[in-house]
Amino acid sequence: MNALDESVKSAVPSDRPAGRPPAAPERPAERPARPAGARSVEGRMLARLLDYLGNPPLEFILWTGERIAPPGAAPVAHVTVSSRATLLGILADPQVRFPDAYCEERLEIDGDLVQLLETVYHSGRSSPNPSPVRRLVEGLRRPHVNTLSGSRENIHHHYDIGNDFYSLWLGETMAYTCAYYPTPTTTLDEAQTAKMDHVCRKLRLRPGESVVEAGCGWGALGLHMARHYGVKVRAFNISREQIAYARERATRLGLSSQVEYVLDDYRNISGRYDAFVSVGMLEHVGVANYPALGEVIARSLGAQGRGLIHSIGRNRPAPLQPWIEKRIFPGAYPPSLAEMMRIFEPYDFSVLDVENLRLHYAQTLRHWLALFEAASGRVRGMFDEKFVRMWRMYLAGSVAGFTTGALQLFQVVFAPRDNNDVPMTREHLYAR
Amino acid sequence: MNALDESVKSAVPSDRPAGRPPAAPERPAERPARPAGARSVEGRMLARLLDYLGNPPLEFILWTGERIAPPGAAPVAHVTVSSRATLLGILADPQVRFPDAYCEERLEIDGDLVQLLETVYHSGRSSPNPSPVRRLVEGLRRPHVNTLSGSRENIHHHYDIGNDFYSLWLGETMAYTCAYYPTPTTTLDEAQTAKMDHVCRKLRLRPGESVVEAGCGWGALGLHMARHYGVKVRAFNISREQIAYARERATRLGLSSQVEYVLDDYRNISGRYDAFVSVGMLEHVGVANYPALGEVIARSLGAQGRGLIHSIGRNRPAPLQPWIEKRIFPGAYPPSLAEMMRIFEPYDFSVLDVENLRLHYAQTLRHWLALFEAASGRVRGMFDEKFVRMWRMYLAGSVAGFTTGALQLFQVVFAPRDNNDVPMTREHLYAR
Repeated sequence: MNALDESVKSAVPSDRPAGRPPAAPERPAERPARPAGARSVEGRMLARLLDYLGNPPLEFILWTGERIAPPGAAPVAHVTVSSRATLLGILADPQVRFPDAYCEERLEIDGDLVQLLETVYHSGRSSPNPSPVRRLVEGLRRPHVNTLSGSRENIHHHYDIGNDFYSLWLGETMAYTCAYYPTPTTTLDEAQTAKMDHVCRKLRLRPGESVVEAGCGWGALGLHMARHYGVKVRAFNISREQIAYARERATRLGLSSQVEYVLDDYRNISGRYDAFVSVGMLEHVGVANYPALGEVIARSLGAQGRGLIHSIGRNRPAPLQPWIEKRIFPGAYPPSLAEMMRIFEPYDFSVLDVENLRLHYAQTLRHWLALFEAASGRVRGMFDEKFVRMWRMYLAGSVAGFTTGALQLFQVVFAPRDNNDVPMTREHLYAR
Repeated sequence: MNALDESVKSAVPSDRPAGRPPAAPERPAERPARPAGARSVEGRMLARLLDYLGNPPLEFILWTGERIAPPGAAPVAHVTVSSRATLLGILADPQVRFPDAYCEERLEIDGDLVQLLETVYHSGRSSPNPSPVRRLVEGLRRPHVNTLSGSRENIHHHYDIGNDFYSLWLGETMAYTCAYYPTPTTTLDEAQTAKMDHVCRKLRLRPGESVVEAGCGWGALGLHMARHYGVKVRAFNISREQIAYARERATRLGLSSQVEYVLDDYRNISGRYDAFVSVGMLEHVGVANYPALGEVIARSLGAQGRGLIHSIGRNRPAPLQPWIEKRIFPGAYPPSLAEMMRIFEPYDFSVLDVENLRLHYAQTLRHWLALFEAASGRVRGMFDEKFVRMWRMYLAGSVAGFTTGALQLFQVVFAPRDNNDVPMTREHLYAR
């Protein structure tokens, strides 16, 4: 999964429930532009919000023609707001209403969307020491525990949109997680394959070994492991569409006897394996379930076992950006490294290696976004303009999340405490 | 620093204060050996302690000639206990009294000390879910906050024993921290140099840059950085003897203008630097001071800065082995990875890389122990037999701590969130 971050803060508190239109009536757009210094009430409120955000270099153009731009650098983008109601909505809940307005064509953006969002991220950085009140509010807003049925619903919401849609922009591998770019010219498909090799090398897979995978997407990693490392794989996923696709792929490649795709929750994993791997599932697990995940891993691995978890993360605990939580990834939460340790500590796992691939995810997302834009006409045909804009916003926001460090990508290798059969150095990962 | 772990658990609670001799009178050693099944009271109590420890393959020989060995595998070592008082002391507080009795020659060990301690570590592993009572007790036993003056006292206790003593067994570099062994045949001196290069590469030091070092030991790393990477270094340490040694070394090498050794606490670091480094100091900082350390780092680094902290750690929070805390490292505490995050989280640092060098520390300690044994006659001449045994116990116990995974060694690379000037991959660390 990918995620926008808290890029914009709610400057004007609202007691209206989200989604209900503001009480104020729409105004016609023919009001004349006001001179600087004689701003409208709405203009002054917007200027105050921009000031609160650290005055990002953006220009807003209101339905009246009034232009609001913070002092300082030239704007990197121009945002046209179509109505008073839209602006009031944004002022009341910018984190959700700004992207919603864009998706609903009540707001237009002239300029580079990624750059716009990066600008907002940079200016809107949370303070080093958030106030206790903010911590409390953020704590209360945290997504609920993911139950078995709740997880199924959340996963269905995002991953079962249609394999045809995802195949338009994920590239050949259909890997929907951060790729690995050994060089700046590596292509998306090469980088996804390089990521799978990086994971297999970190796990030191040997022919004949067994691997259990928690959350397998469209099945690329399991097939790669079986094909190139000679291992047997059992891969779990609760997305019906993805499992069907993965099984079909395994059959096509003649790997059905080596890779078994199981339509079930990671909590129902049974059996013993040489390695445990999970790439891009942890974001959907929820911190409250981390000890349960640790228990699954502990009962799955022998003393010589090893494991790898690859997940979007944070420098410190923070809730998911609310628009992303609402529209894109219900129930998702990217953990801090300390939070991830709640998987490992109770079972005395040793963390052997952590690699932060944040900039690789930015690059992956840039590649996805470019493919998505190239296919946007077809996406519009499959869905509608709103859908196109929603995914554009989500992909561009995720690029910005990773380039500004609002989001991290942690690849964590671990092993049971007793396992001394681990390589002394990581040089083997980089051997040609 | 290095540390024994909680290898032995207190099976028989004692209400006598530590250090006071047991009330029972000494018995003469001429009592005849008892046949199996007709054990003495002491023998039965010892058997019960061994059973509690998971029956490690050790044989105890009492002053009476009675032999106690758990059922199962052949013993890897034989432990001769000289008196009833000694045994009762061990039964009451095995973690402290067993090593104390060895140091005071009231207990002899026939066999490999490292193997003996590894055996005990393996059998005495703490349960996956320690009871709330045990957690509470361990929590209460945690070392106190290290104040400025308290830190000075603790550091003096260990590091100011005498440079002559340390130079007998630390090798040429006088680096008293985990080395890095690129190959199994790397020597101690080579491995210490390789460690310094590994650290410099991880920090990507460039000529002309500035580095601040917190806790510099005898100064080897600062000199290496200045000499081979062309940087300016300010290195802090509160050990008077070490700073004097380091300054003398810098003068001898003509590096005084490039490396400044400051006799002061890390909390008093001032100025701005391109890199922050701390190798083997965190163990003496105390978790309560981690946010303060984070603050020091945050004010020392610019937006393009980067840092590295190298520290002994744990898979999960646990107090230092009490004998080590009492006799070797007062005030020391090896943190879990989650605990280390308390340095980074408040200041939004991104953790870029964590490498676990546990097996490298076991190898380093084996090399130190061999040099120490070779010089034990000279050490005995400088101090006494008790001192020799104390250091042997500490070094051997530390080997066992790392080989059994009771202790970990984390090398953590981090950077301010804004810093995108970081290498995409870690391949450069392994380039020839």
